[in-house]
Amino acid sequence: MNINIILFPDFETLDVFGPVEILGHIKEYHLNFLSLKGGLIKSRHNTEIMTKPLDKVNYSGILFLPGGQGTRELVKDVLFIDTIRHLAQISDYCLTVCTGSALLAETGLLNGKRATSNKRAFSWVEAVNPQVKWVPAARWVIDGNCYTSSGVSAGIDMTLGFIADRFDRKTAREIADNTEYLWNEDQDMDPFSRQQ
Amino acid sequence: MNINIILFPDFETLDVFGPVEILGHIKEYHLNFLSLKGGLIKSRHNTEIMTKPLDKVNYSGILFLPGGQGTRELVKDVLFIDTIRHLAQISDYCLTVCTGSALLAETGLLNGKRATSNKRAFSWVEAVNPQVKWVPAARWVIDGNCYTSSGVSAGIDMTLGFIADRFDRKTAREIADNTEYLWNEDQDMDPFSRQQ
Repeated sequence: MNINIILFPDFETLDVFGPVEILGHIKEYHLNFLSLKGGLIKSRHNTEIMTKPLDKVNYSGILFLPGGQGTRELVKDVLFIDTIRHLAQISDYCLTVCTGSALLAETGLLNGKRATSNKRAFSWVEAVNPQVKWVPAARWVIDGNCYTSSGVSAGIDMTLGFIADRFDRKTAREIADNTEYLWNEDQDMDPFSRQQ
Repeated sequence: MNINIILFPDFETLDVFGPVEILGHIKEYHLNFLSLKGGLIKSRHNTEIMTKPLDKVNYSGILFLPGGQGTRELVKDVLFIDTIRHLAQISDYCLTVCTGSALLAETGLLNGKRATSNKRAFSWVEAVNPQVKWVPAARWVIDGNCYTSSGVSAGIDMTLGFIADRFDRKTAREIADNTEYLWNEDQDMDPFSRQQ
């Protein structure tokens, strides 16, 4: 099973590498780091990650979209959004962290669905596409095959929840223990919703 | 202030990028990704990170050492350990996550000092250098200018603790809120020590 992680300039570092740490514990998952044109992509924190180009491949599996400052420009990038829409349509599941849900919302594929996002960027995300049923207080939200999480660290909790749903809670707990992570298991527990 | 992050093949991804996310919020900190020879370094989870070579520079600032499977070979690598010893001696602070403390212990600079490490690799770490006062139950340990954390996610808590010590608790809490991270503030709280 491919995990197709889409990177772009100014992505939020932990949005990606929290979930990568968790997903990387599943032997059946193959992690691909991708970007529109391939090559080195720099995160908000000066980290340069090597990626493969998106346009040469027709991946299926799990689509993973992080957030970050870079999403502000990307929601206006027609080629990027068209590519994401195509990938989302052929993927078994879509996972977004933070403002990654704004990218998925811009494709129209979240219309009428429940979703969440970073609590400090919430009004911007709502404005990107008001046809999404945005949930203001949730650590993560599941609707159909779409998992969307709140900001940054919430992505780790969501990914453990995703593993619990695909496998079982014991597997998710084992990964949390292995990474010495105190998993916030309750997707409705959102102490950061007050930040809006 | 330089944050000199030392990468090596098979480093544990979140050991690095949890703390990177936290440290990256401090404007005065410049994050450098370094390795012995420079170039692309692959983490345990198939992520390739671009690094600058270590031997051409004489960095001061904060030394950061992650852990991971790669440390098992590295503790035997005389050139690497000599380089780390030199860097640690000229650094204002040394931060290690997980089995990164085994690398620092191998330099001899932790002799007689208190330190901790990953709870599932603890007996191996103790055997690397029994002259360190290894603390079996701690989220993170401070001794002099050395901060050592337990496994993987504990590095995030330690780094927030480091920020609280260098600046203040309000700054650390603001970063935790910004990244929607539920900070485990108590360095003595270690629910994973039972894993030994």
